[in-house]
Amino acid sequence: MASVHIELPQNSYAIHIEAGLLGLAGERVRGGAPHARCALVSDQTVSALYAQPTTASLEQAGFQVSRVDLDSGESNKNAASIERLYRGFLEDRLERSSPVIALGGGVVGDMAGFAAATYRRGVPFVQCPTTLLAMVDSSVGGKTGFNVPEGKNLIGAFHQPALVLIDPTVLRTLPDRELLCGIAECVKHAVIREPELFEWMKKNAQSILELDDAVIVELIERNVSIKAQVVMEDEKEHGVRAHLNFGHTFAHAIEATAGYGKVLHGEAVALGMLAATRASVEAGLCDVALLDSLERLLDTFGFETACALPDDVILEKAMRHDKKVIDDRVRLILPEALGRITIRDDLSPSCIRAGWNHIRQG
Amino acid sequence: MASVHIELPQNSYAIHIEAGLLGLAGERVRGGAPHARCALVSDQTVSALYAQPTTASLEQAGFQVSRVDLDSGESNKNAASIERLYRGFLEDRLERSSPVIALGGGVVGDMAGFAAATYRRGVPFVQCPTTLLAMVDSSVGGKTGFNVPEGKNLIGAFHQPALVLIDPTVLRTLPDRELLCGIAECVKHAVIREPELFEWMKKNAQSILELDDAVIVELIERNVSIKAQVVMEDEKEHGVRAHLNFGHTFAHAIEATAGYGKVLHGEAVALGMLAATRASVEAGLCDVALLDSLERLLDTFGFETACALPDDVILEKAMRHDKKVIDDRVRLILPEALGRITIRDDLSPSCIRAGWNHIRQG
Repeated sequence: MASVHIELPQNSYAIHIEAGLLGLAGERVRGGAPHARCALVSDQTVSALYAQPTTASLEQAGFQVSRVDLDSGESNKNAASIERLYRGFLEDRLERSSPVIALGGGVVGDMAGFAAATYRRGVPFVQCPTTLLAMVDSSVGGKTGFNVPEGKNLIGAFHQPALVLIDPTVLRTLPDRELLCGIAECVKHAVIREPELFEWMKKNAQSILELDDAVIVELIERNVSIKAQVVMEDEKEHGVRAHLNFGHTFAHAIEATAGYGKVLHGEAVALGMLAATRASVEAGLCDVALLDSLERLLDTFGFETACALPDDVILEKAMRHDKKVIDDRVRLILPEALGRITIRDDLSPSCIRAGWNHIRQG
Repeated sequence: MASVHIELPQNSYAIHIEAGLLGLAGERVRGGAPHARCALVSDQTVSALYAQPTTASLEQAGFQVSRVDLDSGESNKNAASIERLYRGFLEDRLERSSPVIALGGGVVGDMAGFAAATYRRGVPFVQCPTTLLAMVDSSVGGKTGFNVPEGKNLIGAFHQPALVLIDPTVLRTLPDRELLCGIAECVKHAVIREPELFEWMKKNAQSILELDDAVIVELIERNVSIKAQVVMEDEKEHGVRAHLNFGHTFAHAIEATAGYGKVLHGEAVALGMLAATRASVEAGLCDVALLDSLERLLDTFGFETACALPDDVILEKAMRHDKKVIDDRVRLILPEALGRITIRDDLSPSCIRAGWNHIRQG
């Protein structure tokens, strides 16, 4: 079993990566946050596949399991779903020490995490991510929240999990498009922190896409380690954690203008990284060779590298609604080279437009 | 000016007490959490009295002030009001660093605090409490939240303020019944931590009720110091902070069964302290003399010491919905003597009933 540990001033927790781990969830959760009741939060899609064995394991460990299955998809990451979680917790009288366990992708994890952060002013939270994206990104670091019409994750809280259990075998039932979304975040980690990972992903692209057991565990472990390192350096995103938003200001604008759910988050991030890198090249901050090699790697994995976009005024407005706007200036996370990132709020509109035009279809 | 300082592992802040402080809010807030935009959250009642001078001070200090006035009263401490705050913040595009300033009593402070805790995963928060209850209790310590039909404050978060500004002159417009509510919490502080304060309040009861300037500032400062001390010892209520809930398990059941707003929180706390002390006497944990002197002090201030109550089964059920239920056992905070508290979850139903009967009218 591979494990990564996170040490924060007020929270320390382990991320375990092991085939078949969902079947052991009960004893692991009892060890991490022992209590007689727990809530298992999932969505309809994941629940049909994995709720039964997970519930069985929890019950075997002595838990009384309260189940809430949310509607699947980003479009349901809203206040109404949070309300359903609260209602479920209240009806089953979950107590202050009852853990909430998220079984699903990032949407389920973010919402279950927010409900756990705010139910009775915070209850223990366990992440069992079932998408590659959630495994390498959202399940680690404590960001929770939901979307409002004005933008993604505009309501949220920092609430670190007590434990993260990653069972890579569940990726076998993950749709290819969702797998790619996780790969996009891995590419992002490689660009911002680890040139060696960039090379390793290039070399192992085929094995990653075929879900080769050893390669997938290594991919998850390397990426979780990067994410954990960044979170330990900067838990609340006052500094270096912002680097994880490479590509995301563009991505959020793509998702917001396309309508949530049309473009998947990872697809938008892949496009956003290209736009940001192109803007960086235009501003004279990085060499065009980086843009080329990023484009080639994304292409190897089968990503779209262009999409239909609304006009610049609409995109600009969407960017301004991003959480990273400070004093009305759009703050961009830009690569200078593989493994070297800069944060800039002084890019000219023409550099940003060059980024958008680079990924604009047709 | 009197000041009390709170030092917590991740947050330190000052509580300033000074006549006329609202008129200086702008420079104080700018010093504590400088930014070009801020939100001033109040309710209709308080807003009519104090929003104008506070806004003027904030604008003079260079803030662009976004105003949200909520409907007054505990019955509006709900998800719909939180939603109104989010909408207001989003419309005026408050940023991650824009402070949210609560101008009002505990209801306004709890809701503005929760919105500040969860808007963009947390923005700076400033408390300007306008009731004695909020000054000596809810504005210090970081508890935020709102009510759901199942009970009070069942959804919430810990979010410490960046600054607390207490202007005691505003108490001159506070209704007598509300003033009493604050006095109930002061009596509670005295019982759980400071026999000298109990004696001082007995001696100065008349001056307190007449809002004598020096006496009121001393009352606020002494009580804020007690609250601050408890919060510093135990920020997240894993231990000694629970002592502050003396009387509250009974009080919450009174409020829940009476319907929110019928009985004021402080009135319920006064009754709850009597019920808890009577239960403690019945269980042989404290002397009846304590019950007598508590009853006399409350009577001196003009509190009701009995009220109409539903039958025991309904009260018992309401108590079980309290946040302090662990493993289905009702955990009670009970006095052993002035300044000495014990936490018990093994009181017999007959002791609890004796508590209820003590305050049951007729």
